[in-house]
Amino acid sequence: MHAYRSHTCADLNKSNVGETVRLSGWVHRVRDHGGLLFIDLRDHYGITQVMADPDSPVFADLEKVRSEWCIRIDGNVMARDESLVNASIPTGEIEVFVRDIEVLGQAAELPLMVFGDQEYPEETRLKYRFLDLRRDAMQKNMTLRSDVVTSMRKRMWDKGFREYQTPIITASSPEGARDFLVPSRQHPGQFYALPQAPQQFKQLMMVAGYDKYFQIAPCFRDEDPRADRSPTDFYQLDLEMSFVSQQDVFDTIQPVLTGVFEEFGGGRKVDQTWEQISYKDAALWYGSDKPDLRNPIKMQVVSEHFAGSGFAIFAKLLEQEGTEIRAVPAPTGGSRKFCDRMNKFAQSEGLPGMGYIFWREKTADSVAQELGIKVKEAQALLKSGEVEGGMEAAGPLAKNIGPERTEAIRQQLGLSVGDAAFFLGGKPKAFESVAGRARNVIGEELGLIDKDRFAFAWIVDFPIYERDEETGKIDFEHNPFSMPQGGMDALDGDPLDVLGYQYDLACNGYELVSGAIRNHKPEIMFKAFEIAGYGKDEVENRFGALVNAFQYGAPPHGGCAAGVDRIVMLLADEANIREVVMFPMNQRAEDLMMNAPSDPTPDQLMELGLRVIPQD
Amino acid sequence: MHAYRSHTCADLNKSNVGETVRLSGWVHRVRDHGGLLFIDLRDHYGITQVMADPDSPVFADLEKVRSEWCIRIDGNVMARDESLVNASIPTGEIEVFVRDIEVLGQAAELPLMVFGDQEYPEETRLKYRFLDLRRDAMQKNMTLRSDVVTSMRKRMWDKGFREYQTPIITASSPEGARDFLVPSRQHPGQFYALPQAPQQFKQLMMVAGYDKYFQIAPCFRDEDPRADRSPTDFYQLDLEMSFVSQQDVFDTIQPVLTGVFEEFGGGRKVDQTWEQISYKDAALWYGSDKPDLRNPIKMQVVSEHFAGSGFAIFAKLLEQEGTEIRAVPAPTGGSRKFCDRMNKFAQSEGLPGMGYIFWREKTADSVAQELGIKVKEAQALLKSGEVEGGMEAAGPLAKNIGPERTEAIRQQLGLSVGDAAFFLGGKPKAFESVAGRARNVIGEELGLIDKDRFAFAWIVDFPIYERDEETGKIDFEHNPFSMPQGGMDALDGDPLDVLGYQYDLACNGYELVSGAIRNHKPEIMFKAFEIAGYGKDEVENRFGALVNAFQYGAPPHGGCAAGVDRIVMLLADEANIREVVMFPMNQRAEDLMMNAPSDPTPDQLMELGLRVIPQD
Repeated sequence: MHAYRSHTCADLNKSNVGETVRLSGWVHRVRDHGGLLFIDLRDHYGITQVMADPDSPVFADLEKVRSEWCIRIDGNVMARDESLVNASIPTGEIEVFVRDIEVLGQAAELPLMVFGDQEYPEETRLKYRFLDLRRDAMQKNMTLRSDVVTSMRKRMWDKGFREYQTPIITASSPEGARDFLVPSRQHPGQFYALPQAPQQFKQLMMVAGYDKYFQIAPCFRDEDPRADRSPTDFYQLDLEMSFVSQQDVFDTIQPVLTGVFEEFGGGRKVDQTWEQISYKDAALWYGSDKPDLRNPIKMQVVSEHFAGSGFAIFAKLLEQEGTEIRAVPAPTGGSRKFCDRMNKFAQSEGLPGMGYIFWREKTADSVAQELGIKVKEAQALLKSGEVEGGMEAAGPLAKNIGPERTEAIRQQLGLSVGDAAFFLGGKPKAFESVAGRARNVIGEELGLIDKDRFAFAWIVDFPIYERDEETGKIDFEHNPFSMPQGGMDALDGDPLDVLGYQYDLACNGYELVSGAIRNHKPEIMFKAFEIAGYGKDEVENRFGALVNAFQYGAPPHGGCAAGVDRIVMLLADEANIREVVMFPMNQRAEDLMMNAPSDPTPDQLMELGLRVIPQD
Repeated sequence: MHAYRSHTCADLNKSNVGETVRLSGWVHRVRDHGGLLFIDLRDHYGITQVMADPDSPVFADLEKVRSEWCIRIDGNVMARDESLVNASIPTGEIEVFVRDIEVLGQAAELPLMVFGDQEYPEETRLKYRFLDLRRDAMQKNMTLRSDVVTSMRKRMWDKGFREYQTPIITASSPEGARDFLVPSRQHPGQFYALPQAPQQFKQLMMVAGYDKYFQIAPCFRDEDPRADRSPTDFYQLDLEMSFVSQQDVFDTIQPVLTGVFEEFGGGRKVDQTWEQISYKDAALWYGSDKPDLRNPIKMQVVSEHFAGSGFAIFAKLLEQEGTEIRAVPAPTGGSRKFCDRMNKFAQSEGLPGMGYIFWREKTADSVAQELGIKVKEAQALLKSGEVEGGMEAAGPLAKNIGPERTEAIRQQLGLSVGDAAFFLGGKPKAFESVAGRARNVIGEELGLIDKDRFAFAWIVDFPIYERDEETGKIDFEHNPFSMPQGGMDALDGDPLDVLGYQYDLACNGYELVSGAIRNHKPEIMFKAFEIAGYGKDEVENRFGALVNAFQYGAPPHGGCAAGVDRIVMLLADEANIREVVMFPMNQRAEDLMMNAPSDPTPDQLMELGLRVIPQD
């Protein structure tokens, strides 16, 4: 028999009854039923109940084992009594009567229980990660992550892509975040950098004729703390293709991702048609370039109804150039209580408030209030038909702009009794993001968001440039490597009108993918940089390898990168990245288990030609 | 039609004749046959001949294109004349008559030709890697590498392993090579390290119950230059398993590797049975712990034949304790010319020389020489039978020890007429490696090595400890994490007798895999370190995470790591690692294309709390 196991702890069932077996695993739970000892023995695959009574030659030894001891047992498989069958686990029909035991690894007192759902401080969990990782939820998340990456690879291979590894010790990258540096020993005083992304390398591979590249690529950014991202590194499904247009990239990645979400989404609905929404429309409709489309709310411009209206604040506002009034429709939000709560939300976001209108069935109460009469009198008027019943618009705004404009707004927004609408005004750039957050909160509070769905849309037509509000300077809006729509000609007009072949994929409010068709023509590249104020020398200095390569027959190419950590977080329904990474850093970028970072030795510093500046 | 291509440059054949197609690719070669223009258009997949005559509306444009321009053409597929069919490429039956052309990317004058086999200095190739990588040999090597890694992954999945990624920014590792350090910004003055291998993490995963782990893992070592390794990083197929013995690890990895070598070995024979050779026997038989078993030569101890013999040097040597004489048999090496050349080899290796004997058919020449008579007289003696013909042993050694001992040696080594044997003596440790090299050279020179074979053997039973010759101190021979054979008890005897469950896989003279069953018992671990002079504090300090984890129910576990770069080098038949890496460093650890390493900015240094010490 094998030294440690004839079966795993998930293998045995009724068909094995009578067999002598050997199992190894951890003591998940011990129950002592007065002379009968039950142990749930756990391994990576499952749990098997093993038991002994004083007839067992090793009963005394078995009595000594404690939670999380690693043991090997030999025993006989026995059928459980019908009434004791546990249908929730595959081994629930049997138990193993223990005849021999070997303690493979004892456990000291546990700083963290594996059995059960007790919560522990993150520092404890990270310091004793090897115990934390034994817990059921973590085993599920880690195997999920592994299986998701495996599935991505298989799907990319099926599409004719090959995985190529790019350097990890390399040069500073131009992605714009902060690099991790690596001092060189052979060139003291000089530094390598860890790649923020394989962007330049994948483009160089296209120039080198590799046609279809992908990589599950580690990316390194020295980031400040945030719960939903690692302070050091993350993984991308990175891909690049030659001789393609934007739609080719979409057609490549969409089936990969829908496949992965269907395979691991636990039955949640996965959008099959991915709408393409322009950056401009996304800002207008959703107040975000990564909208949550599970939320059906779509904002609209309603300026015309407020221009010259009796609501002076908006009317005056609209006299300024570039201002707009936008409505956030709130189906089923038609109550003063809800509207007031949303108004408070707006105030908490730093706005003076959010105007609103809501529509309700006319009641004796509301008629009495409106006409300044008693409720009983109002009831009579309604009954007699002297006052018409039906819908009425409520809220101060409605009063100010009058019934006709109010009705026009209602009709434009397609709202009805029981619904509400909120209004924000000003220069769109100034309030769009608040409007987007209001849309999220309204959708959430009203239960409009379908939690059982992965909702995808491509955000396209990003502007290449933006104007810095403070300096008035034109700079790149996103990333300088994208091909401007219209090519060289487009760069002759107003830079702020230039759109790029650049795209993001939004899923449930997150940016899951980002990509572009690249600017592979050196002359267009130099011109694009010139508009943003970068001289030829600086471009050659910062992006030398790419600029150089593009001189030697560069193909049109493009691609994208999908966030692996984020995808796993969505699938596992986790909000903290540390729930889906095997050995994560804490938010202070420390590994508490491995004790990193730590002090270097004087020899190490000397070899690198470095001195540490004493800190205050 | 697609903007860039209806087919790849490998797709078209006779069945497409008459179709209008669109192709994109690079101008591989242009031939101008007086009014007829032929272009080999190349993409990642193949080459298609496109052509035009002055009837083509774009003949003038086509005349302008040069090597490595990236172009798109439209045209009609035409069958080639029977006599012009090129059977060596899949598109050899057709050519495309060009009706439209678009230049996608022009190429400046080339620093390196893609077409043809011209050799270029490595610096040129690395600086213009994006051109070098277009060359046929590089495309083959890079796709081979990618396909090998893919195949490894599939084979590991099939065996029930999951891939888990381990941290890249982490703590200094105890593998013993030099770490690359990464300064921390959030903890100025402190450093992370890049992992030399995921050794500790994979063991921690076993403690965490993940049972079967693998990873195509990047490993980072700050190494001094050598042609066959990268100065910065390499890749391992890294694996670890719980509840296993050594044989389980062998049974897991062997089919993975035989599968890969069969799949990509181009028909070369792949050993199906992998012998297990003890470290001690490997040293004796092959003078190496990574023997090339394609070479049939097996060395033997022949001390008894020299003890007390007339060959004073060896006879005296053998009077010292711990000395041995070993023979390197050299089948078919039986000529004075060959033996002298090998003797010179030994001298070039710093030895005084290598004694030898060779066996030949007795000739009139040799008899004349031996007896000091004329050749004619010798002929007569041989003819008359007065001097017996047949085999004779030649060389000074044979004379010194006399015919009986010489014959005994010949019989022991199983040699015959036309063969030779070389002899080395002393303390085995002192000459074993030279003997191993002599074996290699002899096998190579005599053509005994079967170049069409991948020959594998496990080297097992490595000693845990060795004695430092100079200090006399006991230290770990290999790696301190291996389980001693015999466990705690074995550590009570002579440390130098303790063998480990530790193994290497040798293939064609390289160490392809290294691994061990780990020491998972804290008490055995502390004892093992104590023998090598490490106190408990130091062990806890250096290997804190592992030692800590082993207190909480550690399972028996073991694994190995296979060198991906080396495997690809063997399959591609390349001796330089830069032929199988997409973007390698040069031997001075510089990336000439990306310009790394480079000077940091003052801001970067300030954020990291570092100062560069000016170099002389």
